Amino acid sequence: MQGSVLLTIAVLGGTGKEGKGLAYRWAKAGYRVLIGSRSSEKAVTAASEIMQLLEGAASVVGTTNLEAAQQADIVVVTVPYSAHRDTLENVKDALKGKLLIDTTVPLIPPKVSKVQMPSAGSAAQEAREILGAEAEVAAAFQNVSHKHLLGEEVVECDVLVTGTSKNARAEVLKLVEATGLTGWDAGPIENSVVVEGLTSVLININKQYGSTYAGIRITGASNK
Amino acid sequence: MQGSVLLTIAVLGGTGKEGKGLAYRWAKAGYRVLIGSRSSEKAVTAASEIMQLLEGAASVVGTTNLEAAQQADIVVVTVPYSAHRDTLENVKDALKGKLLIDTTVPLIPPKVSKVQMPSAGSAAQEAREILGAEAEVAAAFQNVSHKHLLGEEVVECDVLVTGTSKNARAEVLKLVEATGLTGWDAGPIENSVVVEGLTSVLININKQYGSTYAGIRITGASNK
Repeated sequence: MQGSVLLTIAVLGGTGKEGKGLAYRWAKAGYRVLIGSRSSEKAVTAASEIMQLLEGAASVVGTTNLEAAQQADIVVVTVPYSAHRDTLENVKDALKGKLLIDTTVPLIPPKVSKVQMPSAGSAAQEAREILGAEAEVAAAFQNVSHKHLLGEEVVECDVLVTGTSKNARAEVLKLVEATGLTGWDAGPIENSVVVEGLTSVLININKQYGSTYAGIRITGASNK
Repeated sequence: MQGSVLLTIAVLGGTGKEGKGLAYRWAKAGYRVLIGSRSSEKAVTAASEIMQLLEGAASVVGTTNLEAAQQADIVVVTVPYSAHRDTLENVKDALKGKLLIDTTVPLIPPKVSKVQMPSAGSAAQEAREILGAEAEVAAAFQNVSHKHLLGEEVVECDVLVTGTSKNARAEVLKLVEATGLTGWDAGPIENSVVVEGLTSVLININKQYGSTYAGIRITGASNK
């Protein structure tokens, strides 16, 4: 088992496809995972699905978003953008002194292939505004399709990690590695606009070239 | 020779490394290329350097930015961001009814690894504001290192193309192909923030991982 310090990771909105996929990969790597949801029943169901996939050799528990945030060392938010602000305001007090990893892309239907950022600059910077300086905020996994997480497939998409400090980004890069993906330090939280917006660019590429899971790879550098 | 319709491409700021590299690749592909500069002497020198590299089998002429823009079918701007607005205002009248390809990244030293966009949203959107609706504006080549253009090397970096219309993007994608690079339709001009900002992300990766020419590749899709 990796994750030897046995950190507990809360995945808010962990009943969704992206959240469930990440929870699966972290649980498999040995982390204790709390699935959070507005409905604790749904969270319990999602947790038991993941436990079945891993044949019981994992620690995954379902509960409410708030309880999950309270009990975790690191909190990951994987809700749709429409629920982003409410979810964060609900758990704000529980996040003091912790690290939030935001996976949100501020897609505004119907024009999801056009970059449309909130006034804060990006969803991650909006999270930063909501939580204040008492939590660290990082952002990652915005470009990765959930289809490739809940299984053993190699994910042909790198993960660009932004965050409010180099330490926060380093912490997230360890969690990226634990999922089997390749992560890169993409700089300060202000750079989140690039990574979140890249999802709209990839959606546009899927639309124009008939693909389904366009992704990106960094070339010309080594993170080993 | 490709480029059978014999379009004329003006490369404004074509005495710089990026501009010279692009001019070289297009001249080699058979396009007529006009190198523009504030100093026509410098432009003439750059043009003759490219002609020498291509052993005379090309059409490259040096002149002022304004004359180059007036005589060209498609105008490419490759100046540093600090000269972006002045250069465009200088050639604005000559661009009516034409296509501008903006390669500018609004890097603001010393924090070049942090995304810092102008109030228009991106350099390309700023160009759009300056030129008005009478010119089409596209943006491309922001992430490609000049080091790899002035020679025969395979460039390990894809080109994301944004623009004010699908036709404009299609036109640029042909010119990307002519340089030997792989281009992708990255959507409307509003998506330029992603591509321009990606340069800061790549600079950060170079800084963090000791690389020099980090780039990106699109995965999971085919543009053939």
